[in-house]
Amino acid sequence: MTAVGYVHGYSEHEARRLGDQADTLAALLHTGSVYPAGSRVLEVGCGVGAQTVHLVTAGPEAYLTAVDVSEDSLAQARARVAADAPTATVEWCRADLFDLPYGDAAFDHLFVCFVLEHLADPQQALAGLRRVLRPGGTITVIEGDHGSAFFHPDSAGARAVIDQQIRLQSAAGGNALIGRQLQPLLARAGYADVVVRPRTVYADRTRPSLVEGFTRNTFIAMIESVREDALAAGLTTPADWDWGMADLSRTAEDDGTFHYTFFKARAVNP
Amino acid sequence: MTAVGYVHGYSEHEARRLGDQADTLAALLHTGSVYPAGSRVLEVGCGVGAQTVHLVTAGPEAYLTAVDVSEDSLAQARARVAADAPTATVEWCRADLFDLPYGDAAFDHLFVCFVLEHLADPQQALAGLRRVLRPGGTITVIEGDHGSAFFHPDSAGARAVIDQQIRLQSAAGGNALIGRQLQPLLARAGYADVVVRPRTVYADRTRPSLVEGFTRNTFIAMIESVREDALAAGLTTPADWDWGMADLSRTAEDDGTFHYTFFKARAVNP
Repeated sequence: MTAVGYVHGYSEHEARRLGDQADTLAALLHTGSVYPAGSRVLEVGCGVGAQTVHLVTAGPEAYLTAVDVSEDSLAQARARVAADAPTATVEWCRADLFDLPYGDAAFDHLFVCFVLEHLADPQQALAGLRRVLRPGGTITVIEGDHGSAFFHPDSAGARAVIDQQIRLQSAAGGNALIGRQLQPLLARAGYADVVVRPRTVYADRTRPSLVEGFTRNTFIAMIESVREDALAAGLTTPADWDWGMADLSRTAEDDGTFHYTFFKARAVNP
Repeated sequence: MTAVGYVHGYSEHEARRLGDQADTLAALLHTGSVYPAGSRVLEVGCGVGAQTVHLVTAGPEAYLTAVDVSEDSLAQARARVAADAPTATVEWCRADLFDLPYGDAAFDHLFVCFVLEHLADPQQALAGLRRVLRPGGTITVIEGDHGSAFFHPDSAGARAVIDQQIRLQSAAGGNALIGRQLQPLLARAGYADVVVRPRTVYADRTRPSLVEGFTRNTFIAMIESVREDALAAGLTTPADWDWGMADLSRTAEDDGTFHYTFFKARAVNP
């Protein structure tokens, strides 16, 4: 999305992880969002289209435009929407969110999901996006916060591997703890009527699809994906890493429980 | 409730804190709970009655019995219910939850809120409570988890004072991180159909009553109340404590945000 590296990488495995995550979390993250017929909606940083398929479902008669800085991600997003929502019409565009090729006030609504966490200056990004949003138009922002991850059995090793992912994301110019900051970020960027609500995932053995879809295939997979980077950065050793990941995996087994909070914000461009 | 000390103390200030907490959180914690007319409900560990007033509202025609191990707390609970719900009929009884003066299967429902966190063996307590619950009867358990507390601005000092409260509670035989364990605890205690759901509090300046009622008057007040114990135990110094509390207080000011998750469980006595 900008010059900073994308901490999660661009592998096929990562694209599948993002798809799993979006499908498991669709109800949690998209509930309450409706895009009226005829409204002009811009998805900023659509990536591989994991959320795009849910946007076209939430607003089948809206005019949806999706931009991403990666040509390769856009190609995957196109393919995903063609497969999952073949009747949907999406305008795709390769663009940097800091230099969008649209006129002032071109959109009624902006959708920004899992993007700010990768930016060095999220407040500046939000402020800049106001240009293409009409006065009175709204923005939806969704972000996680890895500080919300806690689990049973608790484990210093598991907390350490999560902390290493947070550090790597920070070193890449991002912020894995950004969810808690959405309210001040949006307010300082000039938006009005900011409303932020937590969307909490809690998984235990009585909810096996969440254990599989979220704890294992979304969160643990995301942490596991930074193993080589964590080793290369000297943040851990193979033995410590494997110990931490083994403990983290136990939260998705037997009597394990896992908690994570996403934040969903909505605000108005005054 | 048992031989272990009650980490929060028994002061008048503490009673007010528990009342503030219960009133602010009533909707969050009690939503979805209904006690049918004629059902026999036992509140185990009613303390100063902070939840009792909400139970009589949720089940005005249920037969509510409330027990606590502290005669003094019971007196305060009586006074609170008399003031806030003067038409309610509550049967009060001083008793230890490990030695309840009731026959087998005497109740249709048990309500246990902010009690297990103070017990050295919560699983044993839950298993023992099944005796007074009729087969097919249900139990509601509500607990917090201080590991769910995160905030903006983040601060190592603020995290340290919370950690000191967690350690003191642990040293007193309790567990301030018990919320995440409710599902395995209830299952191992022999309950069936265990359902645990998070009840998340998120406060920022757009929700001033939550900032005041929860962040400041509930959570921060609870941490502040262990200051002398933390100093006496050698866990901190006056300067470090004050620094941490000052940072924690900033989460209730200006651009601060605060997140905390309670867990509400419901299960059946098979």
